[in-house]
Amino acid sequence: MKYYLGLDIGGTFVKGVCVTSDGKVLAEGKCDTGCENGGAAMCDNIARLCEELKAQVNGELAGVGAGCPGMIKSSDGVVKFAGNLGLKNFPLSAELSKRLGVPVKVTNDANAAALGEALFGAGKNYKNSILVTLGTGVGGGIIIDGKLFEGGESAGAEIGHMVIERYGEMCTCGRRGCFERYSSASALTRRTKYAMEEDAGSAMWGKYTSATCTGKTAFEFMDTDKSAAEVVDWYIRYLACGLINLANIFRPEVIMLGGGVAAQGERLTKPLQAIMDREIFGGNDYAPVTVVTASLGNGAGAIGAAALCFNK
Amino acid sequence: MKYYLGLDIGGTFVKGVCVTSDGKVLAEGKCDTGCENGGAAMCDNIARLCEELKAQVNGELAGVGAGCPGMIKSSDGVVKFAGNLGLKNFPLSAELSKRLGVPVKVTNDANAAALGEALFGAGKNYKNSILVTLGTGVGGGIIIDGKLFEGGESAGAEIGHMVIERYGEMCTCGRRGCFERYSSASALTRRTKYAMEEDAGSAMWGKYTSATCTGKTAFEFMDTDKSAAEVVDWYIRYLACGLINLANIFRPEVIMLGGGVAAQGERLTKPLQAIMDREIFGGNDYAPVTVVTASLGNGAGAIGAAALCFNK
Repeated sequence: MKYYLGLDIGGTFVKGVCVTSDGKVLAEGKCDTGCENGGAAMCDNIARLCEELKAQVNGELAGVGAGCPGMIKSSDGVVKFAGNLGLKNFPLSAELSKRLGVPVKVTNDANAAALGEALFGAGKNYKNSILVTLGTGVGGGIIIDGKLFEGGESAGAEIGHMVIERYGEMCTCGRRGCFERYSSASALTRRTKYAMEEDAGSAMWGKYTSATCTGKTAFEFMDTDKSAAEVVDWYIRYLACGLINLANIFRPEVIMLGGGVAAQGERLTKPLQAIMDREIFGGNDYAPVTVVTASLGNGAGAIGAAALCFNK
Repeated sequence: MKYYLGLDIGGTFVKGVCVTSDGKVLAEGKCDTGCENGGAAMCDNIARLCEELKAQVNGELAGVGAGCPGMIKSSDGVVKFAGNLGLKNFPLSAELSKRLGVPVKVTNDANAAALGEALFGAGKNYKNSILVTLGTGVGGGIIIDGKLFEGGESAGAEIGHMVIERYGEMCTCGRRGCFERYSSASALTRRTKYAMEEDAGSAMWGKYTSATCTGKTAFEFMDTDKSAAEVVDWYIRYLACGLINLANIFRPEVIMLGGGVAAQGERLTKPLQAIMDREIFGGNDYAPVTVVTASLGNGAGAIGAAALCFNK
């Protein structure tokens, strides 16, 4: 039996998984990233993890894929820049291949997660899908006709850095008003903090302070507190704006929401769908776009990385 | 010799062209659209034009393609809705095929123009390009890896309907702040009008009134009049915002500007390139995106329509 090994490289841990081409998980595990000791040391750790996983599976390893944060050039597997890992122009694919004895495909971690969700998660019944992750930033990936779309030189699909408010908040990318300044979990937390500070009578103060509130706080109190409800409404309207932009450009069959905020499920997808149906270009009779919650959670990245081996 | 016949259907005229697969024009002509008499009468006119063009060419007609304004479902060649032509759910491909005796491929006119520019115009040396037309609205089309990308069910690529200013001007699509509300020739004219009305001393009054100014007026006076220069600056900044959004998502090698405003050439592309290089995600060392003026003018649509026959 052929199987594929997928790696999801994070700032702290590397997750590894052995899967078949139909997404059946045969083995999984993790190791410390250890990137504080440099890229070579990280690759040594990853190689050990791979050997452990391979030892658990009876079959033929047909390929290895890795999702890595930062700017990745997938054509040659070089990490152009990954601030979290302290890597710059690091030949990840070559270094891993050398240790593992097989070719290693590499992409951005958000792209890998999108591919995993698209093939084996919430997008598995669709050929055109977009994963939008609502975490520290807004990331994601785009699947066109069943294939991962990374943009020219694998430098595109930076959906969090689409300006939706021309004179809006300053973004880390140097522009103002990027989608992720409004729709990330961080943005939601920040807005909740402001709302609490402006409303001394808010029920949110009963459980949180403006220093301890999170992206969950406003959702928790939305049914009982006006300020909390306003925060949720603000968040959903901006998120809808960015999602409809993507829908008008790609017209996918489905937009999948991942990341921490997506755990709100229908509290998020129901109102988003209503706005989508009302505002999408050309109306909803014509190729509807469905908003759903991603289903693989943190596992999407490693499975999607394995899928790099047979998706292209 | 094999050749292809391309049709660019407009509200008043239909342009037709016979071309080889390397873009050599063998014959061209036009006819009245005549859509006020209905879709069947329009197709009769188009069929006559096709016969006239075929009579001028010595070769084998290998395919017919048509670009049509409105919402087109390219998979079956049905015009879902074309307000300008008064057509709704009209089987354009089937009606033309019946008259011409060959299959007819159909797409949106902006997509056809993008394909023409990409294959035979300003994009011919690139595999990934976007045409952005700055006319009454903002239209365009997207070429990925040499192929026209129309979005799911050919309902995507509506780049003019990407919100860049969340609480901005009302758009015909029902949303606020769409790219085309700021970057169309109409928006430029409107802004010029406001600028004149607010500046009684503007040099623009020497030649125009606020009723006769056009999208060219501010460019004409930008070197000699502060208000005109401000209008141009305003226009370029919004246009850059939308183009950089597209660059961050698709990372094409080239963005081509078409439509009336694009005639400004380097007065537009030079400052846009400077902003692009400064603000594009990840910087310009990594897969630069070049902003150029489209080169085929109004001819792009018909040539691109012919190219539908061999692009997919």
